[in-house]
Amino acid sequence: MSLVVVGSMALDTVKTPFGEVKEVLGGAATFFALAASKYTKVQIVAVIGEDFPEQHLDLLRRHGVDVSGVQRRPGRTFRWTGEYTYDLNTAHTLDTQLGVFADFHPEVPEHYRDAEFVFLANIDPTLQLEVLRQMRSPRLRALDSMNFWIESKRGPLTEAISQVDVVLLNEGEVRQYADTYNLYVAARRMLDLGPTALVAKKGEHGAVLISAAGVFIAPAFPLETVLDPTGAGDSFAGGFIGYLASVGDVSLATIKRAMIHGSAVASFAVEDFSVDRLTRLRPEELQQRVEQFRELTTFESTE
Amino acid sequence: MSLVVVGSMALDTVKTPFGEVKEVLGGAATFFALAASKYTKVQIVAVIGEDFPEQHLDLLRRHGVDVSGVQRRPGRTFRWTGEYTYDLNTAHTLDTQLGVFADFHPEVPEHYRDAEFVFLANIDPTLQLEVLRQMRSPRLRALDSMNFWIESKRGPLTEAISQVDVVLLNEGEVRQYADTYNLYVAARRMLDLGPTALVAKKGEHGAVLISAAGVFIAPAFPLETVLDPTGAGDSFAGGFIGYLASVGDVSLATIKRAMIHGSAVASFAVEDFSVDRLTRLRPEELQQRVEQFRELTTFESTE
Repeated sequence: MSLVVVGSMALDTVKTPFGEVKEVLGGAATFFALAASKYTKVQIVAVIGEDFPEQHLDLLRRHGVDVSGVQRRPGRTFRWTGEYTYDLNTAHTLDTQLGVFADFHPEVPEHYRDAEFVFLANIDPTLQLEVLRQMRSPRLRALDSMNFWIESKRGPLTEAISQVDVVLLNEGEVRQYADTYNLYVAARRMLDLGPTALVAKKGEHGAVLISAAGVFIAPAFPLETVLDPTGAGDSFAGGFIGYLASVGDVSLATIKRAMIHGSAVASFAVEDFSVDRLTRLRPEELQQRVEQFRELTTFESTE
Repeated sequence: MSLVVVGSMALDTVKTPFGEVKEVLGGAATFFALAASKYTKVQIVAVIGEDFPEQHLDLLRRHGVDVSGVQRRPGRTFRWTGEYTYDLNTAHTLDTQLGVFADFHPEVPEHYRDAEFVFLANIDPTLQLEVLRQMRSPRLRALDSMNFWIESKRGPLTEAISQVDVVLLNEGEVRQYADTYNLYVAARRMLDLGPTALVAKKGEHGAVLISAAGVFIAPAFPLETVLDPTGAGDSFAGGFIGYLASVGDVSLATIKRAMIHGSAVASFAVEDFSVDRLTRLRPEELQQRVEQFRELTTFESTE
């Protein structure tokens, strides 16, 4: 089934203990779309400036991503500069230049509007609401957000949360939004607003799905080499929602498998800088890693 | 099979956001023994002062724990005072009074020395080595330690690590010992010293087993109420080693189940202060929680 994503496309400059890259392809919508493209047809809504290399759009097209909803506007593309130290869990933002992203208003092309799945990547929640108004009757709406919007746009964010089925947030942001330390108490408060499920992303500790139907815990894949964590969360979301869209149902059993697919795709994303590992990821590698997850967590009964 | 534990018995004064208790039963060997007693016969080696209430020894005896290796010495029992704030992951030590623990030299009673399983709880590694010299031919030796010994007794600790089969440490201590950030790289360096397996304890994020045979990730049980995290790690160790001793084999399949039993027992331990929840824990509650762990992490194949 078709899947629409709205979010940032960016040029990233990133330094980690293992190397440095300048003005490479980045952005939440980019990572999400490339991850989800392993599973289903993706349609992207975003904005880029005059300086955005056409080759990046070609890359997305080669992965079957529909980029007709990407607006090219006068001005510069959104740029993010960040650094990770040895604790690869935390990105330190050194510079943000919004460029054309500052005046972004998502326009969902007519041929996207019947999509059954929609993912609102981390952008201003008022823009997330604009997108929801343009979609006709999606089966599953999901959103990501961040501490900045919790602090500065709590009202619109709460409205957006109440209008989606699945919320994905970093675990610290779940606690921050609900203003309580216990993750499961915080999650229950967020679910009271309307969503059927919440995914708390925990970086190297994996991700937890909390819903009325049950709790499911997906570990992070044990990696000895993490070159660049940028885009891990959006790649997780892409694998997660992409898998759901490919199967076309949202039963708990399917959602559990989707969590593992999300973790698997994210584990590849961090093995190289930018989207490099995602773009060369082969289906059989992905399938093999999903099976390895089973070994990581499955214990046999004594019976 | 029989299981010997050596470690501290203490009187704890603990404050958490949910309450406060004064001079209650605590200590690593105590939590371990009560947790392991759910699975097998436990024999304890420890030291207590003249002021240690006899009722605490009676409690241990009622749980089938052999306390004939507990030395009562002139002086005061080891006391620990600590506080947890809303982040229940970190204990803040307010006061430590070693008392008779300062001059402790473990004496393993003759009828303990043929035990097949031995757990060296967190004590001075030179004492852990003294215990190993007194045991005849245990099938499985395991130890816990902490940052204090990594910093102050690295030599004896390294010797002790090289003489055991399983090392249990907090994940931060694994990184600290191996002086590298990546947990799996750090674990490999520690396994190079001799142990066949390392268990990295991650508090609310669960625990990870790393061995040449494979990696296994046990989540922490999702709890909305944690009253007091004191003893969680030792209860995990007690469930883990206790289960192994009860089955009597150390295959990877058994070790995986043992990790889940460790997590399950630990999840009960934190539901009340001191050892209160452990002592009233019924076998059927424990078995039910182990089955709930399966739901938490098991995903069905699409085939």
